[in-house]
Amino acid sequence: MPPQRRLILYIATSLDGYIATANEDLDWLGVVEQSGEDYGYGAFKETVDTVIMGRRTYDKVASMGVPDPHPDKTLYVITRTRQASLGNIHFHSGDPVALVKELKHGSGKDIYCDGGAQLVNLLMQHDLFDAFIISYIPIMLGEGIRLFADGRPQQNLRLVSAKSFPKGLVQMHYERVR
Amino acid sequence: MPPQRRLILYIATSLDGYIATANEDLDWLGVVEQSGEDYGYGAFKETVDTVIMGRRTYDKVASMGVPDPHPDKTLYVITRTRQASLGNIHFHSGDPVALVKELKHGSGKDIYCDGGAQLVNLLMQHDLFDAFIISYIPIMLGEGIRLFADGRPQQNLRLVSAKSFPKGLVQMHYERVR
Repeated sequence: MPPQRRLILYIATSLDGYIATANEDLDWLGVVEQSGEDYGYGAFKETVDTVIMGRRTYDKVASMGVPDPHPDKTLYVITRTRQASLGNIHFHSGDPVALVKELKHGSGKDIYCDGGAQLVNLLMQHDLFDAFIISYIPIMLGEGIRLFADGRPQQNLRLVSAKSFPKGLVQMHYERVR
Repeated sequence: MPPQRRLILYIATSLDGYIATANEDLDWLGVVEQSGEDYGYGAFKETVDTVIMGRRTYDKVASMGVPDPHPDKTLYVITRTRQASLGNIHFHSGDPVALVKELKHGSGKDIYCDGGAQLVNLLMQHDLFDAFIISYIPIMLGEGIRLFADGRPQQNLRLVSAKSFPKGLVQMHYERVR
């Protein structure tokens, strides 16, 4: 039996654990912007062929002029509104937990969860993530939208790597220990 | 004028940002225990001569059989209850913000804040920390007592170092950029 596809969280957070300010501003990510440095995102994207993201996050990215943020992947947008697919983009109004379980048992590369916090925490409550690649931005936002909500199960992790970069970003890569 | 003494937070957290479980259990820290490895704590303690900690944290440590957790330092325990000093231990029932400001303008080595979350967040609300040395334990607790509460000011940081250790602990050291 081939190994099951893994669900991976790849996300950036402030040191104090927020993925966005309360008004969903993302300008603070600019403190680590550096020409020619993608913090491993391109290489990571090569390891996945399917992306799952929440509707609010999708709409936010679309409003920034990126209607198809993952053009070479199969993208599932989790939404309560039924809507026809747009090319590679599938709007999924069913249970996201069942979707992820089904995708994991299918064939293909790994699955990337591209946020937002609501979807991440739902999937974490069901212990569905197999790896976490978290980039810590050298800033305290003080308040905002938290990456981790309360009410998840305890999970043991194994550190795969921790890398620091000249602009002060630290990227930590963990695997879920089951 | 000599440089002002710095206030430093040296603390361990789960990857999801909790410093203790809801019932204040600390057993999960055992996953990184390793004979002969103190994760730099001894060297750090040499850089400070004064410690400030909250009453609940002090009582917790005392209940574990350590009535004087910092015997070679001047220790301020922040409490609402007036109480006479016990040797090097001073029970401070006044404003902790004023105490820290006064200590910073005095002479001596740096000042170590040894928790807990309530004191840390009060001092962060007043932007009093100059450095943060945070050790990430490779575990998600899922819920508990959060290191960072909402309602603090935004703070820019500079990464000083990020070190990983064989047991999977990652220690990040930041300085406040003012």
